[in-house]
Amino acid sequence: MTEDDFLGGRVRAAQPAVGYRAGTDAVLLAAAVPAKPGQSVLELGCGAGVASLCLAVRVPDLRLTGIERQLPYAGLARTNAARNGVKMEIVTADITNLPASLRGQSFDHVFANPPYYLRTRGSAACDPGREAALGEETPLSQWMDVATRRLVPGGWLTVIQRVERLPDLMQALDDRLGSAELLPLAPRQGRAAKLGVLRARKGARGAFRLLPPLVLHMGARHETDGESYTPPVRAVLRQAAALPWPGD
Amino acid sequence: MTEDDFLGGRVRAAQPAVGYRAGTDAVLLAAAVPAKPGQSVLELGCGAGVASLCLAVRVPDLRLTGIERQLPYAGLARTNAARNGVKMEIVTADITNLPASLRGQSFDHVFANPPYYLRTRGSAACDPGREAALGEETPLSQWMDVATRRLVPGGWLTVIQRVERLPDLMQALDDRLGSAELLPLAPRQGRAAKLGVLRARKGARGAFRLLPPLVLHMGARHETDGESYTPPVRAVLRQAAALPWPGD
Repeated sequence: MTEDDFLGGRVRAAQPAVGYRAGTDAVLLAAAVPAKPGQSVLELGCGAGVASLCLAVRVPDLRLTGIERQLPYAGLARTNAARNGVKMEIVTADITNLPASLRGQSFDHVFANPPYYLRTRGSAACDPGREAALGEETPLSQWMDVATRRLVPGGWLTVIQRVERLPDLMQALDDRLGSAELLPLAPRQGRAAKLGVLRARKGARGAFRLLPPLVLHMGARHETDGESYTPPVRAVLRQAAALPWPGD
Repeated sequence: MTEDDFLGGRVRAAQPAVGYRAGTDAVLLAAAVPAKPGQSVLELGCGAGVASLCLAVRVPDLRLTGIERQLPYAGLARTNAARNGVKMEIVTADITNLPASLRGQSFDHVFANPPYYLRTRGSAACDPGREAALGEETPLSQWMDVATRRLVPGGWLTVIQRVERLPDLMQALDDRLGSAELLPLAPRQGRAAKLGVLRARKGARGAFRLLPPLVLHMGARHETDGESYTPPVRAVLRQAAALPWPGD
């Protein structure tokens, strides 16, 4: 087990030293959720809770719920929430088999970092916890469907995913969602994005928009051992700023 | 009828003054087709032939075939090809009902500028020729299917489309195509792309890539009446250069 700092120490979370570990992606995802104080937020597959805790630091007075099917991670999420003074309900469940209590609820926001890798391609991770978090057993379309069902009309879905899964992600955008926007995250200026954040609203009718990429690192390549994040990304990661989203 | 210059006068084409008229998009599309001398190329929905003629100027010794369902445009395409000294076979047919002679052929490249607008949204163009070219009667997925069928193994599909149709475009990418890459065309630096060029190869297995946007115009906004194209785009439009494609 390790203790890790996020948002410049505003969140401190215990995570397994080996296995699925939250990192920059979870923080960027949380920073992209356009939640306002007092709203309800559901995280699908919350792991040790890092993303929801980061969101709680940026936006006060949220009603936070996290779903995690792996019992040890759900336990960690409860402990981490308590230690950070964040009120968050953690439900130990598979997203494809939600308890009735959750199926009766809807949320202003649903967000998720669904598994990045299709297990039909590539090899599995050695650690079973890591594999369950990273390797896709539940198709991306099912994550999107469950998320959409749990949204109030006009509610926001926010998802981070690898750009190479964009075809799958777009195929999972059905008529219930609209005004979808994809923010590509480019490692450096002029480089192809590896990750993207998708936002869409339930019941909205706006056309899809591909936003200009957000550049994560300065310079043409990694030149120093120190941090090279661009100022807006550094503000997200170290000062709990919102992800700059064109139009927000 | 008007006479229009393309590629700095290297192509001169007659087009209806009113109706569907080829412009910058057709030139950018042609510049993105990675054809090599001696290869065979099929354009679906070639209109008055401008895109194929631009391709012929950049890459010599191509075997060019264009399909156009509107008789007046097919006639113009024949006339324009002859006047520009380009050998090109024009087939008057609907892409959903190709003659047997074409169904028996396959091509190193298939490219297209499918209709941009879904007619379930928005209103129709007043001119019937323009409406038939711009308004979608044949779904995008059918354009992609017909194009894919006509490719040799390893052959390239190149399509230009509005970014707001990206979900439809991605849904039309099936298992027969791989190594797909999308090049967003941004009107200006830091602005959301309106158009994108998709390239994919039949039978390839590479993951989808979202390339960094190609910026069309200099400056933050339109400031002068003169041309404001960025140097690489000006080279495409005026000197018949290939579209700069990362990795090419």
